[in-house]
Amino acid sequence: MSNNILTFGEVLMRISPSNHKTLQQSKEVEFFFGGTEMNVAASLSTFGCKTQHISNVSNDFVGDAAISYMKSLGIDVSFITKNEHPLGLYFLEVGSDVRPSRIAYNRLNGSFSNIKPNEVDWNKALENCNFFHWTGITPGISESAYETLKQGLQFAYSKGINITTDPAYRSNLWNYGKKGQDILKELIGYSTIFIGGVNEINEILETNFSTDKNGFIEASKTLMKEIPSIQKVFDKVRIGINASSQATQGRAWINDEYLETEEIQINHVVDRIGTGDAFAAGLIYGLINHDDQFALNFANAACAMKHTILGDTNLASVDDILELVNGNFGGRIKR
Amino acid sequence: MSNNILTFGEVLMRISPSNHKTLQQSKEVEFFFGGTEMNVAASLSTFGCKTQHISNVSNDFVGDAAISYMKSLGIDVSFITKNEHPLGLYFLEVGSDVRPSRIAYNRLNGSFSNIKPNEVDWNKALENCNFFHWTGITPGISESAYETLKQGLQFAYSKGINITTDPAYRSNLWNYGKKGQDILKELIGYSTIFIGGVNEINEILETNFSTDKNGFIEASKTLMKEIPSIQKVFDKVRIGINASSQATQGRAWINDEYLETEEIQINHVVDRIGTGDAFAAGLIYGLINHDDQFALNFANAACAMKHTILGDTNLASVDDILELVNGNFGGRIKR
Amino acid sequence: MSNNILTFGEVLMRISPSNHKTLQQSKEVEFFFGGTEMNVAASLSTFGCKTQHISNVSNDFVGDAAISYMKSLGIDVSFITKNEHPLGLYFLEVGSDVRPSRIAYNRLNGSFSNIKPNEVDWNKALENCNFFHWTGITPGISESAYETLKQGLQFAYSKGINITTDPAYRSNLWNYGKKGQDILKELIGYSTIFIGGVNEINEILETNFSTDKNGFIEASKTLMKEIPSIQKVFDKVRIGINASSQATQGRAWINDEYLETEEIQINHVVDRIGTGDAFAAGLIYGLINHDDQFALNFANAACAMKHTILGDTNLASVDDILELVNGNFGGRIKR
Amino acid sequence: MSNNILTFGEVLMRISPSNHKTLQQSKEVEFFFGGTEMNVAASLSTFGCKTQHISNVSNDFVGDAAISYMKSLGIDVSFITKNEHPLGLYFLEVGSDVRPSRIAYNRLNGSFSNIKPNEVDWNKALENCNFFHWTGITPGISESAYETLKQGLQFAYSKGINITTDPAYRSNLWNYGKKGQDILKELIGYSTIFIGGVNEINEILETNFSTDKNGFIEASKTLMKEIPSIQKVFDKVRIGINASSQATQGRAWINDEYLETEEIQINHVVDRIGTGDAFAAGLIYGLINHDDQFALNFANAACAMKHTILGDTNLASVDDILELVNGNFGGRIKR
Amino acid sequence: MSNNILTFGEVLMRISPSNHKTLQQSKEVEFFFGGTEMNVAASLSTFGCKTQHISNVSNDFVGDAAISYMKSLGIDVSFITKNEHPLGLYFLEVGSDVRPSRIAYNRLNGSFSNIKPNEVDWNKALENCNFFHWTGITPGISESAYETLKQGLQFAYSKGINITTDPAYRSNLWNYGKKGQDILKELIGYSTIFIGGVNEINEILETNFSTDKNGFIEASKTLMKEIPSIQKVFDKVRIGINASSQATQGRAWINDEYLETEEIQINHVVDRIGTGDAFAAGLIYGLINHDDQFALNFANAACAMKHTILGDTNLASVDDILELVNGNFGGRIKR
Amino acid sequence: MSNNILTFGEVLMRISPSNHKTLQQSKEVEFFFGGTEMNVAASLSTFGCKTQHISNVSNDFVGDAAISYMKSLGIDVSFITKNEHPLGLYFLEVGSDVRPSRIAYNRLNGSFSNIKPNEVDWNKALENCNFFHWTGITPGISESAYETLKQGLQFAYSKGINITTDPAYRSNLWNYGKKGQDILKELIGYSTIFIGGVNEINEILETNFSTDKNGFIEASKTLMKEIPSIQKVFDKVRIGINASSQATQGRAWINDEYLETEEIQINHVVDRIGTGDAFAAGLIYGLINHDDQFALNFANAACAMKHTILGDTNLASVDDILELVNGNFGGRIKR
Repeated sequence: MSNNILTFGEVLMRISPSNHKTLQQSKEVEFFFGGTEMNVAASLSTFGCKTQHISNVSNDFVGDAAISYMKSLGIDVSFITKNEHPLGLYFLEVGSDVRPSRIAYNRLNGSFSNIKPNEVDWNKALENCNFFHWTGITPGISESAYETLKQGLQFAYSKGINITTDPAYRSNLWNYGKKGQDILKELIGYSTIFIGGVNEINEILETNFSTDKNGFIEASKTLMKEIPSIQKVFDKVRIGINASSQATQGRAWINDEYLETEEIQINHVVDRIGTGDAFAAGLIYGLINHDDQFALNFANAACAMKHTILGDTNLASVDDILELVNGNFGGRIKR
Repeated sequence: MSNNILTFGEVLMRISPSNHKTLQQSKEVEFFFGGTEMNVAASLSTFGCKTQHISNVSNDFVGDAAISYMKSLGIDVSFITKNEHPLGLYFLEVGSDVRPSRIAYNRLNGSFSNIKPNEVDWNKALENCNFFHWTGITPGISESAYETLKQGLQFAYSKGINITTDPAYRSNLWNYGKKGQDILKELIGYSTIFIGGVNEINEILETNFSTDKNGFIEASKTLMKEIPSIQKVFDKVRIGINASSQATQGRAWINDEYLETEEIQINHVVDRIGTGDAFAAGLIYGLINHDDQFALNFANAACAMKHTILGDTNLASVDDILELVNGNFGGRIKR
Repeated sequence: MSNNILTFGEVLMRISPSNHKTLQQSKEVEFFFGGTEMNVAASLSTFGCKTQHISNVSNDFVGDAAISYMKSLGIDVSFITKNEHPLGLYFLEVGSDVRPSRIAYNRLNGSFSNIKPNEVDWNKALENCNFFHWTGITPGISESAYETLKQGLQFAYSKGINITTDPAYRSNLWNYGKKGQDILKELIGYSTIFIGGVNEINEILETNFSTDKNGFIEASKTLMKEIPSIQKVFDKVRIGINASSQATQGRAWINDEYLETEEIQINHVVDRIGTGDAFAAGLIYGLINHDDQFALNFANAACAMKHTILGDTNLASVDDILELVNGNFGGRIKR
Repeated sequence: MSNNILTFGEVLMRISPSNHKTLQQSKEVEFFFGGTEMNVAASLSTFGCKTQHISNVSNDFVGDAAISYMKSLGIDVSFITKNEHPLGLYFLEVGSDVRPSRIAYNRLNGSFSNIKPNEVDWNKALENCNFFHWTGITPGISESAYETLKQGLQFAYSKGINITTDPAYRSNLWNYGKKGQDILKELIGYSTIFIGGVNEINEILETNFSTDKNGFIEASKTLMKEIPSIQKVFDKVRIGINASSQATQGRAWINDEYLETEEIQINHVVDRIGTGDAFAAGLIYGLINHDDQFALNFANAACAMKHTILGDTNLASVDDILELVNGNFGGRIKR
Repeated sequence: MSNNILTFGEVLMRISPSNHKTLQQSKEVEFFFGGTEMNVAASLSTFGCKTQHISNVSNDFVGDAAISYMKSLGIDVSFITKNEHPLGLYFLEVGSDVRPSRIAYNRLNGSFSNIKPNEVDWNKALENCNFFHWTGITPGISESAYETLKQGLQFAYSKGINITTDPAYRSNLWNYGKKGQDILKELIGYSTIFIGGVNEINEILETNFSTDKNGFIEASKTLMKEIPSIQKVFDKVRIGINASSQATQGRAWINDEYLETEEIQINHVVDRIGTGDAFAAGLIYGLINHDDQFALNFANAACAMKHTILGDTNLASVDDILELVNGNFGGRIKR
Repeated sequence: MSNNILTFGEVLMRISPSNHKTLQQSKEVEFFFGGTEMNVAASLSTFGCKTQHISNVSNDFVGDAAISYMKSLGIDVSFITKNEHPLGLYFLEVGSDVRPSRIAYNRLNGSFSNIKPNEVDWNKALENCNFFHWTGITPGISESAYETLKQGLQFAYSKGINITTDPAYRSNLWNYGKKGQDILKELIGYSTIFIGGVNEINEILETNFSTDKNGFIEASKTLMKEIPSIQKVFDKVRIGINASSQATQGRAWINDEYLETEEIQINHVVDRIGTGDAFAAGLIYGLINHDDQFALNFANAACAMKHTILGDTNLASVDDILELVNGNFGGRIKR
């Protein structure tokens, strides 16, 4: 597999009490490394793809541990820079059943937030790259992160690289004086594959489509009209019953055709974080190796599978996910 | 919020293997502090109320750790005394699904069991008190605990303080030669709010009402006739499917009117202990701040929420519980 | 209870990350001792029966720990020998919901695999023995294990001891040049009670019966015709919904009569391993103390109960299982 | 080795934060089973001796876990009875360097404290017994424990069994109205081997000997004159530098001869608890198998070795201790 | 004890692998709350003094956990404010022997760094205050922290409150454009007791005194001449042999008199962090209750004791420390 | 740093109870990956060198985890093959003070033992290689491991690559019918740098030199005469006081000159395993970058530092070790 997928974004440390405890009642916590774009690289690397992640991490033993984690997964980290700001992190209290999970962030003055455009040699980094994946988190963190990303997108776009985006508009970011919608529309304009649904389109275009099938189709059409670079819209529909029970379904609008998958239900959620990134990684894997319908099925199964894996990154293999695509729901031990 | 809620009762240490292990297969155990009345103070303190708990704990580092825990929750501990007996404790093996949880007690010669009436300056302790909460566990532990409680109830009653009681008749207590029913009837006679249902009324009055709606109404009427101090009866109906799945519903009989709540189902129980205390605390919070129907709804949601929180005490905030009252079943992460 | 049950087979160490983690994302692992035949002895010993297990363990502190574990359960270990080969072990990654559990073995050159027939003084070991339990794993491990087992079976058979077998054909064993089916048929020929169903019969007899009730009856009849020593066939029907949800049902064919139990569903599986061994132990207990229908009910409840207990061995007592037989599904705490 | 050593005394659960934490700063604790007499049986059983321990444990899953622990070490538990009182336990905060360890007890109304003389069939229990070991803790716990012990000692004495005693006078016991010194003198009168030194003799005889060599010799002579059943006095001299550094030396007075060992220093104490019991067990092992000087050397090395083993019981083998006797101070890994 | 000690400064979360592991080789970490000034309040509160700590913590569950911790120790937290910035934190890798411990900070844009002078009602906060303790960390964090502190010091100075300072000049702070030395000299000008030695004086006054006794006396004299508000200089001399072995000694210069303590050596360091704060707290306790020499002895023993206690805060009691002052070096267990 | 260091040997999983526990008293264990040659690569990779390790690991999730670990350290794993045998492993009980550590191996039929010579494309693997490091463990494991190694050494020798060897003769290996001494002499004949001392030379040459300075010099001379390819002899002298206290010193014989280092004492050993490998890695680093005396000093400091780091591999950086070379013994925290 000679494809080379590049992701760009913040690497975050997650700090979390185990066994559904609150922080107040804990003395020990588990930690994991994640970050929405790195999660995509991690999953694709586990699928056997060549991946590289570009970021800036803290110049201390925390940043070193983050890099070591990425290397353990086979992600190429040779373009990652360091500065004297701390690594971004977040605290997670894992809910259960009727109690929702809660997150407290510590990222806004971290190392990635202080990345500078000239730190990345985009030309060299994109040399053997076929896919470039970015999310709307990055431009929301800081102006210099936005500018660094934009530079990369412009290079990639000019080279005809496939650009996938998870727009992920978050209202609690975007504190540097620019309007999130304007910037997202600008950056999506360099992208070809939109991984998002009605909610995301409504947030970005400030429209009001319904979330049903027709609403999705109309929203997709409108998005493609407003931002003509987009060729495919892939949506992960999450049905959140409670913190322990979730269902996911994939749907897509491509070449004036509507695709969808079966719904997969997860009644014993181990970890919600990174399930959207698992979808994105599954989708990219599917698009590289098969057709759109396969990609959608594989993405939805990858997303479902991630609910059963602790941590931010999806550690499931292609074989693991194919079994779920093929209807093996885990009832037998694999010896 | 200037209300002051006083609770009185034993502080217990819970010792428990994690992850559904049995004690025999463990080398490490988790511990928590609880005790039914202290749990009520703990939850109300977390709701932002002023609370104080009165008890007697061991004069050693175990008692000190118990006091430190209560202080961490903001409970006023200035009336807690100490003696040379050990802190009461219990071991809990947490079941799962068809395997029930099991408890082994070590409390009958503990520090609280040896409390003496003159240790508590009830007059001073009740100075700014609006609510006094007690349970039927306390008079069942020892005669001196019973006498200490009775003294407090008499003081509180004479001052017109709201007195709530969870009668909690337990047949494995009451070893000091008095009949539990007689003493409970006596002490309930100083109380205004009865937090208990058909089973508790049948046990105390030695009646035989059915547990359906009509049975509950008739039992409540009979209770109010026999013990006229009782003005309101609030009942938590538990539907115990198995050790991992439970459902709760609240109902009440007040001023010849029947109230009830919707049923809330919990399919991934984290911790059963203290759910009744969470109900009582939610009820007191609701009664202080709102009307009876709100109090019942809030109490039932608090009870349901506690099933998802490890330990004896309910650490959920008012906002957490209001979300559940309002039908948010935890499906989304709170960032 | 003066019955004496002898089991013979490999003692395995299980090494497993906790909380559904993968090995790659762990630094610590839990370990347990098991092995399908020892699990049966362990459960029967916990039921209060006299049991002895015969095996060969490593002559190092790992083997010592295994022996210490068996002694902690009351199993007589006085016939266990040691050699300089390492104790067999396996790694288990515990799945969840749609993610299956995975096992990696390290047993084929272990101490038990190198057991020699003359190490066991079968005559003395079988002196007070009423039941001898073996499984098809043992002859699959090595030729000398097969020969040692065969010797024991011949002795036991000649003494009229009840011989129960769980045929457990595993295709990834049987590497020493003999055909598994041939040897299993030979050894089952010394056995009176067959604990297995349609799948096992089809594997051994190379038949193709369906798994429904009629298929089971026909398969049992055929088995009894081909191997006339078999008097009773007991089958555990597992319905594996996913890694967290399982259902079990028992059925039997005895004296031309079909027996079955109700289905018990487990929606919060704690541990799948050893549930078949729990069934076998429950069955033997029931057969020793009651009739066939009781034995089947008890076996099925024991199997269900084991799904809620961590580790390879069933630590539930007779009382625990009788409660489940009697329909108590664990909804109340046992104080 | 056909000797049979009987010990009699309380089985205690130890509950302890790990890593030198205080209870107040812990959420998890480790637990161990111990008790000074059972520790002696445990160590002797690990040495390969036949041992039995007689006690009374709680009739719940805590008592069951204690019994399972003793069985795991090979101790015969068939004379242990149960009652409805909780198992005695203690909390331990492990100090370090200048910070001493601290203990809080919860034992005075436990199951052993409520043992009744007629529970033990001393005649049968002592049938194959050569050594009976008791300590001064037992008669200090309760009058019925004292009476039960006395009955056993009288039987043993009449049968000419070797009776070893660690007098262990503890002023915080002896709450039932008898003077400790009187009772200890009475019970030591049934004993032949005294395992204690100047401090113990001074406490029991209310004398004032100095702790140097001459003081030890004079104290021993006086003891033997006052209590003529005593034939040998063995003393463990502990030099407690701080909580992490300790030194031990053995000395003895036998047949008007003074014996002593070299001093062994331990600078990295893992666990202080049970080091005296390790000395006693080493001594009994040595006396059974060799001469007095060997016994003293072996006892002192066993005591030193126990400082490096977590928990109450000495898990070192005879070979482990012989290496230390022979001057191997642990500098090489054993492969 | 009616004294009221106020401390002001950042509350920090410490995140640390256990057992000397590096972060890279860990999956779990322990956490503690600390911060140099809060540590002083914590220790004094444990000594039984009335303390209050003023700070600003994050408005999320991390800040709530920090407040809960301070409450658990009895510190008055009613003047603590919150903002939307994250709580400051640091990562600690605990060294051993020749490997030094390492710290990575994440504090410079945290909640305390963003405290505003008008958040603190100094007038009310200082109402019953006798001692005000501050360190040089606070003005180094941010300009607004400096200004808030200065306001408090001016109020306190005008009320004649005892003001103690640990100057703690750290070159990696002071990033907001002011020279640390200038500001420290200004703020020390409001202080009466200087807790620091030759190194601190040299750093602040940019002098070059030697660290021997004479150098200390000359440095102290010079400091008192340059900053006449200072009446007493207390110095903790640390002899850092390696990460596991440390020695401490106290010395002072007061009223033209030189005082010193014996040296205490710690060869099994459990935790280095907060030992200076333990010294400061011990000193303030001693000054409130006794004379200068006692205060110095108590401070030095408190400092030594803290090396044996995990976490940032000294949890030793007055009695614990007095034992060390009196030469009890921890060799006996306290029962 | 463009040097490329190749190591070849078994990757082992280490399984070990924490906190000096024995396996028998544990339920959880830590695990690490190691193996003497891989440890050298790991340390050199941490020093910033380009390294590759060649081995064969199990084709299961255990082997995958081992590979992931090596990748996390930056070791090139692209020449590692897999087979169906399990990964070799060993159990370690960590001693303390007078109690030695103990190891139990499970490796003799593992994946590496079954490596076949043609699995390694030595020509390609050695393309950019400057140093080849091997140990005497590898040819002792199996004949095919010996042959694979020999092939590699012949290739490397013919290319003039520096070949370092740690002869590590272990009498419990060498079970395939060849005499260890013969094979080691043959393979050392392809090597230029001998990392071993008097004991190793005596074992291989079956001589009887004393371990003092003169003995070392004479032994080295004899070795160089018998095996003329050897140009330099580097010896790590270990003084094993007990399991917690060790001292190390380096000495060398090069060009008829004797070199030595100062002795470094470690009194709080965290982990003994891999200290020899740390010496070898330090030596290779020093030889690549500096002169022989520096290499010896750096190697000895690396060896000392490794005693303070948990796990098999040395995770210290060049800077960490240089500080120790320069006499910084860890007494100050690095912020």
